[in-house]
Amino acid sequence: MPEIDLLKIINVLGTFAFAISGATMAMSKKLDAFGVLVIAFVTSIGGGTLRDILIGNLPVGWLSSDFILLIILITSLLTLFFYKYLNKLSTTLFLFDALGIGLFTIAGAEIAEAKGFNIPICITLGTITACFGGVLRDVLLNHVPLIFRKELYATACIIGAAVYFFNKKLGLNSELNTFICIGIIVALRIWAVRYKIYLPSITIPDQEED
Amino acid sequence: MPEIDLLKIINVLGTFAFAISGATMAMSKKLDAFGVLVIAFVTSIGGGTLRDILIGNLPVGWLSSDFILLIILITSLLTLFFYKYLNKLSTTLFLFDALGIGLFTIAGAEIAEAKGFNIPICITLGTITACFGGVLRDVLLNHVPLIFRKELYATACIIGAAVYFFNKKLGLNSELNTFICIGIIVALRIWAVRYKIYLPSITIPDQEED
Amino acid sequence: MPEIDLLKIINVLGTFAFAISGATMAMSKKLDAFGVLVIAFVTSIGGGTLRDILIGNLPVGWLSSDFILLIILITSLLTLFFYKYLNKLSTTLFLFDALGIGLFTIAGAEIAEAKGFNIPICITLGTITACFGGVLRDVLLNHVPLIFRKELYATACIIGAAVYFFNKKLGLNSELNTFICIGIIVALRIWAVRYKIYLPSITIPDQEED
Repeated sequence: MPEIDLLKIINVLGTFAFAISGATMAMSKKLDAFGVLVIAFVTSIGGGTLRDILIGNLPVGWLSSDFILLIILITSLLTLFFYKYLNKLSTTLFLFDALGIGLFTIAGAEIAEAKGFNIPICITLGTITACFGGVLRDVLLNHVPLIFRKELYATACIIGAAVYFFNKKLGLNSELNTFICIGIIVALRIWAVRYKIYLPSITIPDQEED
Repeated sequence: MPEIDLLKIINVLGTFAFAISGATMAMSKKLDAFGVLVIAFVTSIGGGTLRDILIGNLPVGWLSSDFILLIILITSLLTLFFYKYLNKLSTTLFLFDALGIGLFTIAGAEIAEAKGFNIPICITLGTITACFGGVLRDVLLNHVPLIFRKELYATACIIGAAVYFFNKKLGLNSELNTFICIGIIVALRIWAVRYKIYLPSITIPDQEED
Repeated sequence: MPEIDLLKIINVLGTFAFAISGATMAMSKKLDAFGVLVIAFVTSIGGGTLRDILIGNLPVGWLSSDFILLIILITSLLTLFFYKYLNKLSTTLFLFDALGIGLFTIAGAEIAEAKGFNIPICITLGTITACFGGVLRDVLLNHVPLIFRKELYATACIIGAAVYFFNKKLGLNSELNTFICIGIIVALRIWAVRYKIYLPSITIPDQEED
């Protein structure tokens, strides 16, 4: 089953990328070692966990995995001890994060498709898989989620997932299509950060709801 | 099945009302267009999603709906483009929100009852359906949920749902009962906001827990 | 079934302990009476609810319980009316909280084990059962979860649950083992607070993620 192996490799790489991103942010918020581990964990598995819960794929995936917990534990420890080098690797970290969302978007969309959901729902679930871990991390660290006001982020996932299903309709081979669409998401992120491309926002005066 | 159609209409109207309320608050917090869409989405489907997860009604409802995503998308776009008029329509928006919680409370309570839960649990699940979307919106926008300190809100839902089950015991026809209890919730909200009726609160000095 | 009765008693005591802790914190944040009830509720049932959702044990436990809602309601009302005395009982409250996490850790780990998960996952799920209610309470009250920066807390749960499975491998009788491991968790918490034992933290300058 090369398909399953590919999904597994994607899962490991994405988990690793998000664990570093979560651990780094937790350390910048003065959390203790346990807090760093939890934030790394939540950032890595949050998106896939929400997807699994929403579609009823229970118990959620990481409970039955032998290596996810271990990868996150090791990555958190490495981040705690070698953070000095990570600071100098911010471009590398950015690329890891971009790769992470690319990987998780397509993996999530494929899982949703296998469950028989329609295409807009599959795109939504792919985007949730990629982005919700970061949202959860931001909620726990007590600030408004970054993806609601940073350079194209979820939008890159939505576009990548949409192209994936478009190519599939055209009959493009599944593995090649996976690689192309992960590439599109990574490229969109690099382009957006390089040229500071933001989604427009229309703001109105602050007001209490009622 | 007129019953099912009624539930569907309730769902559409409530979704619409909450999407406007969510989008408006997101705009006042300077979120980008994607953030506005997500907050509108979460406000609309958050309560029903939590109810479905808690009772094991998976995949959650909106994943299998053809129109929920579309309604929220269109409502968010309309809110983004016509916010100036919305500002002048604050009374209308308040009534929409009141209608939304009325509709969702009774719909949620009915779904819980069909699953065979006891009445206090059905009332709780109806209230969660109506109120949790707003809680989630507030958590994402990084403030303490409004319903914990505004004029009677969840309390109106609890009373409306309790009357619903009381009437049902008396043998009142289901559709008429639905209309009456939605009316009670809307009326309680109007009354509470008009006369600034708050639940009492007993506050104690701030303290770290331990 | 003495086993089931023990779990039930554990559940009642832990629910009571966490409801007081939640209600007290909510009152210090100026929430109204409904807010106090919700925070007490979320603190009490949050951990078990997340565990049940993750493992697919749906509908979640408290929906089918006759007494959980009632215990939380009564405890919240007692806390609202007798808060003056509670303030003088802070040591008692601390002990209740310590007992609560001890009770919930072992109960959660046992439920996970009965579902056939491997030991690291059972330890994780026990810790989630004990700690996530407090995390949810802190998110709703809009601050970074206390367990990410206070004296040994989740760490005590992890150690207690690990000893539990170690003893079980040695063939130690289940009820005795339960008592011993709850005792270990409570003792670790008392020791940590008494001597101000924190997990180390390595902090780095605050930075926006990207």
